[in-house]
Amino acid sequence: MKDLSNLDEFEVGFDIPAKPGMREDEIQTPALVLDLDALERNIKKMGDYARDHGMRHRVHGKMHKSVDVALLQERLGGAVGVCCQKVSEAEVFARGGIKDVLVSNQVREPQKIDRLARLPKLGARTIVCVDDIENVADLSEAAVRHGTQIECFIEMDVGAGRCGVIGAENVVEIAKAIEAADGLKYTGIQAYQGAMQHMDSYEDRKAKIATAVAMVKEAVDALKAEGIDSELVSGGGTGSYYFESNSGVYNELQCGSYAFMDADYGRILDKDGNRIDRGEWENALFILTSVMSHAKADKAIVDAGLKAQSVDSGLPVIFGRDDVEYVKCSDEHGVVADPEGVLKVNDKLHLVPGHCDPTCNVHDWYVGVRNGVVETVWPVSARGRAY
Amino acid sequence: MKDLSNLDEFEVGFDIPAKPGMREDEIQTPALVLDLDALERNIKKMGDYARDHGMRHRVHGKMHKSVDVALLQERLGGAVGVCCQKVSEAEVFARGGIKDVLVSNQVREPQKIDRLARLPKLGARTIVCVDDIENVADLSEAAVRHGTQIECFIEMDVGAGRCGVIGAENVVEIAKAIEAADGLKYTGIQAYQGAMQHMDSYEDRKAKIATAVAMVKEAVDALKAEGIDSELVSGGGTGSYYFESNSGVYNELQCGSYAFMDADYGRILDKDGNRIDRGEWENALFILTSVMSHAKADKAIVDAGLKAQSVDSGLPVIFGRDDVEYVKCSDEHGVVADPEGVLKVNDKLHLVPGHCDPTCNVHDWYVGVRNGVVETVWPVSARGRAY
Repeated sequence: MKDLSNLDEFEVGFDIPAKPGMREDEIQTPALVLDLDALERNIKKMGDYARDHGMRHRVHGKMHKSVDVALLQERLGGAVGVCCQKVSEAEVFARGGIKDVLVSNQVREPQKIDRLARLPKLGARTIVCVDDIENVADLSEAAVRHGTQIECFIEMDVGAGRCGVIGAENVVEIAKAIEAADGLKYTGIQAYQGAMQHMDSYEDRKAKIATAVAMVKEAVDALKAEGIDSELVSGGGTGSYYFESNSGVYNELQCGSYAFMDADYGRILDKDGNRIDRGEWENALFILTSVMSHAKADKAIVDAGLKAQSVDSGLPVIFGRDDVEYVKCSDEHGVVADPEGVLKVNDKLHLVPGHCDPTCNVHDWYVGVRNGVVETVWPVSARGRAY
Repeated sequence: MKDLSNLDEFEVGFDIPAKPGMREDEIQTPALVLDLDALERNIKKMGDYARDHGMRHRVHGKMHKSVDVALLQERLGGAVGVCCQKVSEAEVFARGGIKDVLVSNQVREPQKIDRLARLPKLGARTIVCVDDIENVADLSEAAVRHGTQIECFIEMDVGAGRCGVIGAENVVEIAKAIEAADGLKYTGIQAYQGAMQHMDSYEDRKAKIATAVAMVKEAVDALKAEGIDSELVSGGGTGSYYFESNSGVYNELQCGSYAFMDADYGRILDKDGNRIDRGEWENALFILTSVMSHAKADKAIVDAGLKAQSVDSGLPVIFGRDDVEYVKCSDEHGVVADPEGVLKVNDKLHLVPGHCDPTCNVHDWYVGVRNGVVETVWPVSARGRAY
């Protein structure tokens, strides 16, 4: 295997889809393509919003799994660091130079706790989520063993129904245990309402976040009454960041999908009833695909199927085309309805994936394109880091 | 990046889930685990069936994407070689020592055709599917350029409604063009009825294959009438191989999923109305997952979500357990209903994935386990080779 930083070692078509300087239509398909202009505009826009609202922006690295994108988010969008979901992802980001890394998830398995406790030695502030008082002693022991400090967020379940505790009294109990434990520090609250991010209606999302904010405020106040300050209150996603930013309770955002957009997120509506991919955010991520069979007059077969994307949130949408539609996905094929027979073999289409996160996770490379020319090829640095 | 053949270079937990000699409960999760005993029994059983019925078995490498599994299928199951769907996969198998490789798909893009034409230089008999007479000149030109021979299957659409031509006259026309082209050879017919493999009822599947057999027989006879012999007639999957084997028309099988099994295939019924994963085939592939949060009494959260599997064909099933159920999947989490509260943090579960092919494609490694001990760790050699 080859040095990821040296593209010369890679062979186009075998292990890499393109090299800088190639035309977009020479990219070997299927491939993940980033429209660099759109990406940079999205990143700058969210960065400006966060800055103007006095919010820290800890970008969600689990979406793109890319050190290069995270560094761009720091440079152009003022991001303070990343959050991610796995210790192995956090290691990739810390090794890549990100200085503030939150594992926005529980870490319970002994070997993973050990790895987590070593992260600060890579130069990264290290934060992890806790939702069980029984986790505290294990985290403390590992931090002490390595002579490091692990900061802790207490994860609250504010409606997602997954990990996290419910109720201010449980938060206070765990915070006290963390404060009393060697090598640990209570830093704040993780309160991400994931379940509402994809609700179409702005008012429905607003109502869900209002409930979340009330739950978090109660916990923050209860902690304060016990003399425990919450330095950070963190959460918010692409479908809700304006609510958290104006809550007076949260001070850190965790947006991910805004940078790339996808078909499922794009369908949700803003305050004025407009789809968020029609003005608020631009589609910057595409699966470039080629027609590889057109043996029937009214359907084209393209080369991007389930091995090139995840369809958990619906089929991809063909960007900029009303005349053809991606209607079926199998392992290595997509069926594109072509009622007028406008497509021919080797035509390229840009697919907007249904769900960006798990789609990025099946690719090894992002091909960055500007003005029709490949400008950069970035590894999906943490792809496959699921441990 | 590191040498895939030298596991010593890999760090457990960062870039590899386990090393040989570890106990199964030490494997870092989520991870793909192979029950080696079950795998070997499945491979031997299908090999015996094919031999007893005079069929060649060209195993489908797109399912596992593993040179190690393909070599095991040759050794224990008498496989004659592999089929796969992409040129980049074919390159991995040919470089790995497989001597007979079919790209059971169209190859149309100039650079991919060029790579295909170089495959015989790696020592592999190289066959590709053709469903468009306009493809013939491009394939011929590339074969001549490299001084190689590309063998061609004509792909027939026998009901899948995807690639492939319909009608004996179209097959004959393309076969003649292939026979007349330098560097090419007409070798036979590709006729895989993918759309019926997952129909539950044995009789429904039988009826669909009967139609396919009739279409193929008509084409083979029409070719013969023109003096063109079909050396190979290839197709058949885990849901149909007994029909093709007894058709008198097919002489080569292309089964894939039988070796690993999955939840979706497992549900189809055999001749006697029994699920095929209750006797015909064993579950050999599992996603090993850990409970990482149990903050609510009646639900456990496990660490295998959409980044550890594909749910296009339904959610995973928890192997050997009736008391708990995997009910929801998000990016990095699975929600397991645990009404009796029997699970605790760090408990391990074996998930049978909904669909094996795209699930294997998100992992880098197979962990081969026998009697509770890790025996081998194999790379998913062609993972990400989608071009």
